[in-house]
Amino acid sequence: MAVIGAGAIGGAVIEALEKGRVPGASLIAGLHSGSTSNEIDSAIAASDVVVEATTVDAAEEFIPRVTAAGKDIIVCSCGVFARHENPRDLISAPHDDSGTPGRVFVPAGAVGGLDVLAAASRAGKTDARLSHFTIKSPAALGVDEELTESREVFRGSARDAALRFPRTSNASVALALATLGLDHAEVVVVADPRVTRTRHVVEFRSPLGTYEMSFENSLDPASGGRTSAITAWSVAELLIGIRDGVGPGAVVLERG
Amino acid sequence: MAVIGAGAIGGAVIEALEKGRVPGASLIAGLHSGSTSNEIDSAIAASDVVVEATTVDAAEEFIPRVTAAGKDIIVCSCGVFARHENPRDLISAPHDDSGTPGRVFVPAGAVGGLDVLAAASRAGKTDARLSHFTIKSPAALGVDEELTESREVFRGSARDAALRFPRTSNASVALALATLGLDHAEVVVVADPRVTRTRHVVEFRSPLGTYEMSFENSLDPASGGRTSAITAWSVAELLIGIRDGVGPGAVVLERG
Repeated sequence: MAVIGAGAIGGAVIEALEKGRVPGASLIAGLHSGSTSNEIDSAIAASDVVVEATTVDAAEEFIPRVTAAGKDIIVCSCGVFARHENPRDLISAPHDDSGTPGRVFVPAGAVGGLDVLAAASRAGKTDARLSHFTIKSPAALGVDEELTESREVFRGSARDAALRFPRTSNASVALALATLGLDHAEVVVVADPRVTRTRHVVEFRSPLGTYEMSFENSLDPASGGRTSAITAWSVAELLIGIRDGVGPGAVVLERG
Repeated sequence: MAVIGAGAIGGAVIEALEKGRVPGASLIAGLHSGSTSNEIDSAIAASDVVVEATTVDAAEEFIPRVTAAGKDIIVCSCGVFARHENPRDLISAPHDDSGTPGRVFVPAGAVGGLDVLAAASRAGKTDARLSHFTIKSPAALGVDEELTESREVFRGSARDAALRFPRTSNASVALALATLGLDHAEVVVVADPRVTRTRHVVEFRSPLGTYEMSFENSLDPASGGRTSAITAWSVAELLIGIRDGVGPGAVVLERG
């Protein structure tokens, strides 16, 4: 596999791979903004799976490029899908129409529970309602004013959240894609001067049940306080799920 | 695929399959306690995946039988693994040593968040701690005495919980297998006369983050109030994950 992006997430994924903590996966290449087009093509050709951990603009470029090469791509900057009415439009068939386009995978990122929420959504979406509260420090959200208490700075659909806060809405987009879709999942962004760790609260109500989840993540110091350390591990979990043919989070027992 | 068990879970899985709500899966046979050994062998041979939705005793019999036939099995009565020091011991190689034994999958069942908890556990287990609180009505737990307030009726490892409450500990076992193992996950069972819906609370603390999740499930009336309706959908989600080669809960976009 190849990793695009040498920031907090990409660096942590590369480190986990190099330390052998993602069984069965090995790193072909780490790509970055200085990589040449030839280097990129060679790395994609030599990989089964490419991990994108950069920006929505780079994701917009790489999703068609990787899928057209017939390779799967894990998209961390999944806010890119908010720009497209149908997220699948970014998947590109091979140029000579030979072979099958690669698939796109979206990791849970800084949150979890996509397993139960996807199952409940499959049972029925009509009466289901999902709200995702992201509670961050004003600095992490780019809020300049001096706050003494928490303040709601955004409320809207996951699509609008991703367009407004492209760097901080990836978990909202993953949750929405796994459940009710980008236009039917509600996102609330709260700036709170008291928080030291980013907090995500997910509320889901449907006839099947009521689920409330709170995720308080330690921040990766390499990210300038913007990225949760769990995010890179959610990518590792997805890589292992792809290797096992099931997962992430599915318990797989094989005769050892 | 074949489904063993015609109770609340098996029946709901069969219904979802028959209604075409599990894309790509079709039902070969529904097996039950009256099925003959020949019928069982034929159904296993004709299936890719067998769903066990019966009792721990039946799971003990079927896991080796299905895996020895080289077929995968989804085990709902996963409390059976508490009886074995190494859960993998139940997986049996084909008798003539031809081919590969099937794999065992455990669905999340009545809870969720196995995605984020598995990822956090893969990052490190040493300082991680998992507690699973199951809050049920006294009747559902077989507690006879008249309670006026909630009472803790068990606190111990997931292994001991499954041995003591084999019918009501499957979610505990799934959580433990996905994270810290049967002997290192703590389970607390609470009888509460006020609850009308079963409630599960999962708390996980590790250097990566603090995760608190509450799952309040509607009960499947076909189960006599013992089984959550979400459980059958977690099996469906796992079947779709196996078909997609990734999941449950992973967002997979394929060119449509």
